[in-house]
Amino acid sequence: MAKSAAIQQKNLEKIFYPESLVVVGANKVQGTVPADIIFNILKTDFQGIVYPVSPREHFISGIKCHKYVADIVDPVDLAILVFPSSVCHLAMEQCGEKGIKSVIIISAGFKEVGGIGLEREKQIKEIADKYDMSFIGPNCLGVINTDPKALLNASFARKMPTEGSIAFLSQSGALCTAVLDYAQAKHIGFSKFVSFGNKADISEIDLLYYLKDDPKTKVILVYLEEISDGPGLMKAAREIITETGKPILALKSGRTKEGASAAASHTGSLAGSDEIVDAAFEQAGIIRCDNIEEMFNIAIAMTYQSLPSNNRVAIITNAGGPGVLTTDAVIHDGLQLAHFSDETTDIFRKSLPKTANIKNPVDVIGDARADRYHVAVSNALKDENVDGVFVILTPQSMTDIEKIAEEICLVSGHYEKPLYTSFMGESDVAAGIDILQRHKIPHYILPESMSKSFARAYQFKQRLGKEWTQAAAFDDVDREKAQSILKEARKNKRKYLPEGEAVEVLKAYGFPVSPGGVAKSEAEAVSIAEKIGFPVVMKVFSDDIVHKFDVKGVYLNVNSAKEAREAYQAIHKN
Amino acid sequence: MAKSAAIQQKNLEKIFYPESLVVVGANKVQGTVPADIIFNILKTDFQGIVYPVSPREHFISGIKCHKYVADIVDPVDLAILVFPSSVCHLAMEQCGEKGIKSVIIISAGFKEVGGIGLEREKQIKEIADKYDMSFIGPNCLGVINTDPKALLNASFARKMPTEGSIAFLSQSGALCTAVLDYAQAKHIGFSKFVSFGNKADISEIDLLYYLKDDPKTKVILVYLEEISDGPGLMKAAREIITETGKPILALKSGRTKEGASAAASHTGSLAGSDEIVDAAFEQAGIIRCDNIEEMFNIAIAMTYQSLPSNNRVAIITNAGGPGVLTTDAVIHDGLQLAHFSDETTDIFRKSLPKTANIKNPVDVIGDARADRYHVAVSNALKDENVDGVFVILTPQSMTDIEKIAEEICLVSGHYEKPLYTSFMGESDVAAGIDILQRHKIPHYILPESMSKSFARAYQFKQRLGKEWTQAAAFDDVDREKAQSILKEARKNKRKYLPEGEAVEVLKAYGFPVSPGGVAKSEAEAVSIAEKIGFPVVMKVFSDDIVHKFDVKGVYLNVNSAKEAREAYQAIHKN
Repeated sequence: MAKSAAIQQKNLEKIFYPESLVVVGANKVQGTVPADIIFNILKTDFQGIVYPVSPREHFISGIKCHKYVADIVDPVDLAILVFPSSVCHLAMEQCGEKGIKSVIIISAGFKEVGGIGLEREKQIKEIADKYDMSFIGPNCLGVINTDPKALLNASFARKMPTEGSIAFLSQSGALCTAVLDYAQAKHIGFSKFVSFGNKADISEIDLLYYLKDDPKTKVILVYLEEISDGPGLMKAAREIITETGKPILALKSGRTKEGASAAASHTGSLAGSDEIVDAAFEQAGIIRCDNIEEMFNIAIAMTYQSLPSNNRVAIITNAGGPGVLTTDAVIHDGLQLAHFSDETTDIFRKSLPKTANIKNPVDVIGDARADRYHVAVSNALKDENVDGVFVILTPQSMTDIEKIAEEICLVSGHYEKPLYTSFMGESDVAAGIDILQRHKIPHYILPESMSKSFARAYQFKQRLGKEWTQAAAFDDVDREKAQSILKEARKNKRKYLPEGEAVEVLKAYGFPVSPGGVAKSEAEAVSIAEKIGFPVVMKVFSDDIVHKFDVKGVYLNVNSAKEAREAYQAIHKN
Repeated sequence: MAKSAAIQQKNLEKIFYPESLVVVGANKVQGTVPADIIFNILKTDFQGIVYPVSPREHFISGIKCHKYVADIVDPVDLAILVFPSSVCHLAMEQCGEKGIKSVIIISAGFKEVGGIGLEREKQIKEIADKYDMSFIGPNCLGVINTDPKALLNASFARKMPTEGSIAFLSQSGALCTAVLDYAQAKHIGFSKFVSFGNKADISEIDLLYYLKDDPKTKVILVYLEEISDGPGLMKAAREIITETGKPILALKSGRTKEGASAAASHTGSLAGSDEIVDAAFEQAGIIRCDNIEEMFNIAIAMTYQSLPSNNRVAIITNAGGPGVLTTDAVIHDGLQLAHFSDETTDIFRKSLPKTANIKNPVDVIGDARADRYHVAVSNALKDENVDGVFVILTPQSMTDIEKIAEEICLVSGHYEKPLYTSFMGESDVAAGIDILQRHKIPHYILPESMSKSFARAYQFKQRLGKEWTQAAAFDDVDREKAQSILKEARKNKRKYLPEGEAVEVLKAYGFPVSPGGVAKSEAEAVSIAEKIGFPVVMKVFSDDIVHKFDVKGVYLNVNSAKEAREAYQAIHKN
């Protein structure tokens, strides 16, 4: 019997916050996954006791190894399995007997390889259910919790991320390694980081509910290849968004048939129709992203800054061209260029050089230094007509890039309004970007990404204020009838459904249709017409005739029994 | 009188390859544009003689300054003006008298500021025409030529790019600084780099023609805010593409009304309708890009590698998730997943681990090292069913990133087929990416960008093989007639055009329409019907009735004079 959601949540707590853990299958052979895992746990100063269980080793990093889980005297909260898949069930059984309720199964060789792997996955799931144990995986990279109370890196990732407010859930383990590297370079921290692999037991839905109540998490990102329980996912997302206001950003692969089939051989999942995913995410308020970069672009906007209260943005730039490109992007993304108040305009006129453009986009001109950026940015933030500020910088010969970055961080701290930046270029602007990123000021290589991220944050904010409409569900659908009509047509190799049958299909789905009928004789035509009431339209009915007008098969304004008879004859003749 | 295209080309040669040049307005006050320019020229080892002309300085960097251009005894090929705009015309006049034919005007304060600026721009243009001089600018960053024969950095950019095969033309000077920084960090070199500012004399079209015959240039990039001569631009682009096969990539801002108005206050240009730009670029074979990053993504694909001969790609990855995401992108971009030959499949089966996925996308599995990448990449390149290879890497604990990068560079050198890479992450993969970029292997942060760039290169290749169709032009259009009908309708505040008038409008534009006429009596109806020939359709004609069916205003199958009369009465009655 499957476990209740309450049990999953209780056991998840011990996955993230174990007071003691056992690594089953540990060794110290460098470059192997078991060694990477145990060294990662020890390296990050895990706040608890570690028990290595190994058939071969006597000690690892000065810690005594046990041969079996049962040999450990004290109670253990969490087991991490890095055992070969063929013997994983034995380890699970041992853990169950020991009373361990929370497990992370790193090992691969389950559903994703098919055949015997499917059996093995079923087997460990059954053991887990028998003992009320919950597990993450199998076939995953592991779990990371940056909370200083835990400091757990139960994964074979190359690096431990810094603490932050973003939770990341991923069905692909390898994607996690790329994400960790990408995020570290940009000083993006994480609250929880979970690779959930084949999700044979704990699903993304369980994890979402856990993160809902996690005080360390402000924004949730999830990479999915397959959605096994669509309605459940939608329900969880809605609850999280309405009750906590935490945004959920999703990257769902398998958009195409070919991508879905690649996913099937990767995590053994069936991807389903992409249009349904789009619609479901939209209804549930989940923000769907096109790629990893876009996901983090939006995530930092929502994590670092308040949500925009409206869509009027001010652009401050030291370069006209990028100002124009950004204006295009702003309008394209459904935002507006703010109109500055008279007061702001006056200040700009007095404080900026004569050659500056003091209208939005504000061009502080190529030789602008930190003081000029200060005037423009702080007064734009102060202006009531402005809901957000975009700061653009290009590295010109007089630009004191780092000072400008520091000035922006300082000014931004004084206002609640969102401020995003784009320092364009790469090496010259790198030190400036680093300052912005360390101070949690959203930075974007492209001004276009800045605009798009603002727009998504704004849309989410609007969504928060709106009533949720339940998607209509229809119980009175006669699917069987519709299917039997279509099946019959297919059997007869017909490419078109004649009108009568098409109407029946519509009726089966509850659509209202005009009354009518198929007449096989003059008399029948008159009788049907009289039942409907004059005037009626008469049309030829034939499997072979699709374009009825072409063969003079349509008669309008049939007003009487006599006309109906005439029309019948005429159609018949044609 | 305007100068001929031949003069512009002759003078452009001296802008890029001067044997001697004069900087008018030079000084040595660090942090000023004139000082930046002269130091840039001297710093990059310009292959020619430099004459500073300065009203104040006696020497700059050991070079004697002249007070006036006329004081220079030897002939001078090129003048660079960094004089205030109010006195630029005096410098121009002096240069003209000295016989200098080629000029770069850096100074701002012309058309872009309006008012007197417009006058000044007109004035310098007149002087140029009088002396058959050509000039770039005003209001620009300058010109760079990396050719070792010239080594000219006549700009106030922070850095001199390395030599390469990409030419970059930009209407925005500040964007140039961002582009130079971006490109340098990625080891992207340039052949020619031109900021052409207000293009008061030499236009992007002149520059395109110059680059057509420039042996150093393989791919041309252009940033435009305004197109002053659309047909001229299209003609130039077509000639370049058909005669030389050099691709032209364009970033055109002012897509939106607001962006266009921002552009107007930037370079004083009128942006025009964006749909026309799209259509014109499409017809001319110009590849339109959405942002700077996309432009360089496509540019490196086309510069570094051969164009794909077909669209079947092989994906090699050490991570399933990114393989799925890339497959989605490939299909979305109109490419195909290659089906490997039996031979390749055999090799993969024998040489890759059992857990590897040997179908496309090939998953060499997370613990893959350089040897496994070698097998997968080289055999994919060898396979006749493969037109291009995408290599994806995520930084997992066993991944020898730099060795894999080196292996890829080595293998790629043995095949003509395009190979693109995406090493996902940031700092861990940085050294590997650096190796790829130095060896001119296209690299993309996102696999999605890799796929998009391949698709654009493939589309360009297809385009090269196709006949160019001249867009149809219609001389027999009676615009006045159409306009008079619409004007009349508007005058009468009608929201719909009655059928008769609509038909007249269509006729005015030369569309064939069914014969017909408006009958105001039974007799007229019969006479028109007889002229057309039976059967005819009869409809109500009224300004007020749009939906004719609703009022029983349509009669089909009117077969005789008698029926026509009946139908007329019936319609009249209804």
